[in-house]
Amino acid sequence: MLFHVRMDVRLPADLDPRERDEIVAREKAYSQDLQRAGKWPHIWRVVGEYANFSIFDVESNDELHRILSGLPLFSYMEIQVTPLAVHPSDIKAEGS
Amino acid sequence: MLFHVRMDVRLPADLDPRERDEIVAREKAYSQDLQRAGKWPHIWRVVGEYANFSIFDVESNDELHRILSGLPLFSYMEIQVTPLAVHPSDIKAEGS
Amino acid sequence: MLFHVRMDVRLPADLDPRERDEIVAREKAYSQDLQRAGKWPHIWRVVGEYANFSIFDVESNDELHRILSGLPLFSYMEIQVTPLAVHPSDIKAEGS
Amino acid sequence: MLFHVRMDVRLPADLDPRERDEIVAREKAYSQDLQRAGKWPHIWRVVGEYANFSIFDVESNDELHRILSGLPLFSYMEIQVTPLAVHPSDIKAEGS
Amino acid sequence: MLFHVRMDVRLPADLDPRERDEIVAREKAYSQDLQRAGKWPHIWRVVGEYANFSIFDVESNDELHRILSGLPLFSYMEIQVTPLAVHPSDIKAEGS
Amino acid sequence: MLFHVRMDVRLPADLDPRERDEIVAREKAYSQDLQRAGKWPHIWRVVGEYANFSIFDVESNDELHRILSGLPLFSYMEIQVTPLAVHPSDIKAEGS
Amino acid sequence: MLFHVRMDVRLPADLDPRERDEIVAREKAYSQDLQRAGKWPHIWRVVGEYANFSIFDVESNDELHRILSGLPLFSYMEIQVTPLAVHPSDIKAEGS
Amino acid sequence: MLFHVRMDVRLPADLDPRERDEIVAREKAYSQDLQRAGKWPHIWRVVGEYANFSIFDVESNDELHRILSGLPLFSYMEIQVTPLAVHPSDIKAEGS
Amino acid sequence: MLFHVRMDVRLPADLDPRERDEIVAREKAYSQDLQRAGKWPHIWRVVGEYANFSIFDVESNDELHRILSGLPLFSYMEIQVTPLAVHPSDIKAEGS
Amino acid sequence: MLFHVRMDVRLPADLDPRERDEIVAREKAYSQDLQRAGKWPHIWRVVGEYANFSIFDVESNDELHRILSGLPLFSYMEIQVTPLAVHPSDIKAEGS
Repeated sequence: MLFHVRMDVRLPADLDPRERDEIVAREKAYSQDLQRAGKWPHIWRVVGEYANFSIFDVESNDELHRILSGLPLFSYMEIQVTPLAVHPSDIKAEGS
Repeated sequence: MLFHVRMDVRLPADLDPRERDEIVAREKAYSQDLQRAGKWPHIWRVVGEYANFSIFDVESNDELHRILSGLPLFSYMEIQVTPLAVHPSDIKAEGS
Repeated sequence: MLFHVRMDVRLPADLDPRERDEIVAREKAYSQDLQRAGKWPHIWRVVGEYANFSIFDVESNDELHRILSGLPLFSYMEIQVTPLAVHPSDIKAEGS
Repeated sequence: MLFHVRMDVRLPADLDPRERDEIVAREKAYSQDLQRAGKWPHIWRVVGEYANFSIFDVESNDELHRILSGLPLFSYMEIQVTPLAVHPSDIKAEGS
Repeated sequence: MLFHVRMDVRLPADLDPRERDEIVAREKAYSQDLQRAGKWPHIWRVVGEYANFSIFDVESNDELHRILSGLPLFSYMEIQVTPLAVHPSDIKAEGS
Repeated sequence: MLFHVRMDVRLPADLDPRERDEIVAREKAYSQDLQRAGKWPHIWRVVGEYANFSIFDVESNDELHRILSGLPLFSYMEIQVTPLAVHPSDIKAEGS
Repeated sequence: MLFHVRMDVRLPADLDPRERDEIVAREKAYSQDLQRAGKWPHIWRVVGEYANFSIFDVESNDELHRILSGLPLFSYMEIQVTPLAVHPSDIKAEGS
Repeated sequence: MLFHVRMDVRLPADLDPRERDEIVAREKAYSQDLQRAGKWPHIWRVVGEYANFSIFDVESNDELHRILSGLPLFSYMEIQVTPLAVHPSDIKAEGS
Repeated sequence: MLFHVRMDVRLPADLDPRERDEIVAREKAYSQDLQRAGKWPHIWRVVGEYANFSIFDVESNDELHRILSGLPLFSYMEIQVTPLAVHPSDIKAEGS
Repeated sequence: MLFHVRMDVRLPADLDPRERDEIVAREKAYSQDLQRAGKWPHIWRVVGEYANFSIFDVESNDELHRILSGLPLFSYMEIQVTPLAVHPSDIKAEGS
């Protein structure tokens, strides 16, 4: 089941640079584990912004919330979730 | 080069049903040709709305505008384009 | 899997009253069938507005989109869908 | 009498973690007491956000304000209240 | 129980003037009946707009919705309802 | 001359509790003096928010600004003023 | 007593050109009468828009509403009124 | 003197195609005359929208309003004007 | 050449009172010098807000930016500039 | 390939003045290097705001993101990117 997610990161200006590097590194590892597990099939940077558009592929709303609220940067993010359905023009869904 | 596009369709209430069916069929064919050509790799329906999130893969801004303004439903759509870049956490981009 | 849905109905001022009554009656029957089937457990009127807040309980995003896009009033509605998860303070979810 | 409430929690980034845990624990107890008393029949987490949609069942506007302004997290919340009425399609209200 | 209501009237430009006068006259009679009954204690014109701020005093949310949805101009209005509680500084509420 | 005013209070999270109590007490006294003088005939709490809707009855715009900018909480408030006129359906204004 | 008013004119696309010219001519005469009477001391065109910023000098909110609701273009306008007070830095108000 | 202008065109769905072609052709000629005269040095299409960003170089606000309100598509446009100044980092302005 | 400017002042809550008084005094002197020079012909207080509407009369966009960015309170302000043109109904512009 | 970019700078009120001067100087040098390289052909100040409108000419979305995220002021900016296409009325594009 697919979800479209926009994440905007707002780090406080006075965050300690080492703490910042450490949390961003953990965020990257967390994201890549989920990508490898097939839960987070797409992540794109929004040009010019500290933000991304992502696609998640999960079993349930609860699983998606566990994943998102577990993001190391969660408390610094504004997140907007949109549920997706198959589009009738999608050639990958033909015959399904 | 990737772009994120949101399209909202607003068909007038008094549109003739046959004209509507005909234009929607042309829209589908137009979209599927571009999907097969690799220009429109993803299209998802926004749940509960006559809208979609799409990803386009084109050579230039001008090519994207030619594609979008050529949509049979173009004059009935509100379209919002966001340029995308590679995300540093994307495992598909590692090593690139 | 639960979803929160807000529906705002915008009927055109010049809609024929009999057509209006007929479509509203079909909407009611459609809604009540889904309520009886357990798919639409809650529906409330927003005071002073031709709008409702509803809760849907479905198997997937695709099922929800089929239900919503099948509403007799769908083409006259603005619909906003929000996925819901279990709240950690919910006493009904304790021990689950 | 039913009310729809959306609560968004905005904890300051520099809140002491123990103080945070203590206030969140008090919030949970406060909410569960009201749930058991039938005043707060539903609470759902908004996926991906530190927010909830809730339904309250109270005797009056004043009772609702006392409950909401007494929330341990009240001063950190943005709250939006919408009064609800019986929906004419609600099967639970038939014959009432 | 008090509610604050803002009503914005949007009459279609092509409404027949006699129909307009007739519906506005019915709206006035409907409003004045409720004012005399104590249900609609205040109504003020917003300067420069075809809009009003009103205060309603009703037994329940359902009663308020019946009153508002019964307004002759209801289908031409945008209505926004806000529940009110006693303010702790209100001298009229002292000792209550 | 009547004005509709919405006031939203935003106290900083780190305000000293005693300072907070003192300023709120001064605000209450200030408001009640104006209520007794007939300048501030109505004040209602917005349910669930640290906000009020008020009606002021003053001689001029300048008098209203002096009153509002003199509020002890003024520097912590967002204030929105709307001038009011007699509504043609108001039974209290009949014959005036 | 001064008020700041923004007026945006939205003429329907299918308005008869002669009717349009006639109503715009009446609007101009109405405005110039009020300018000569000192009630409407300033009117400026917003560059690139069918809109104006105006300053009115009236005795009361009711007088302002009578003037604005009497504008020949009133039913085609969106109007926003802001009450003005003397600014403490205004050299014209020094010593007053 | 430079101004940044965004123009969004909203043609009515029922506009006669020949009338549409004729007005668009006049718009193009009007624009190109001003480009050749140096008054309209830049015009870019916003990708995916029937809109443009333009730069105008004029003597005064009044000249800009005359140009914009004379656009053949003016009554179908939403226009937003932003005055521009020399940027202190602009290498073309160095030494000026 | 006239410009309409709205300025909203947002002073930080922890600004030293003496620093505040000093900067506000400088702002007043700066404004009054420009008023006397005819560059800033009007300034009005927005009732209930720490904001003003002003009219500037300058030679160019660059002159206006120099004036506004030189305001002692500039870094604490949100400023919105709108270029103005002569209104065709303005009696002061007749015959010009 | 052209992009329209709006940048709004929000420097924290408590930024050390020397640090501020140093970062602004680096920003200027960075911008001018890109202007000389033809990557950043236009930059204009928005009158009255600490903001600019810019045009970038780059090979790809990724190049644009590298440039923007490398701005010394990047973490203090809100940036909005709009892709541009050739406008059919642009005389510079005729025959291309």
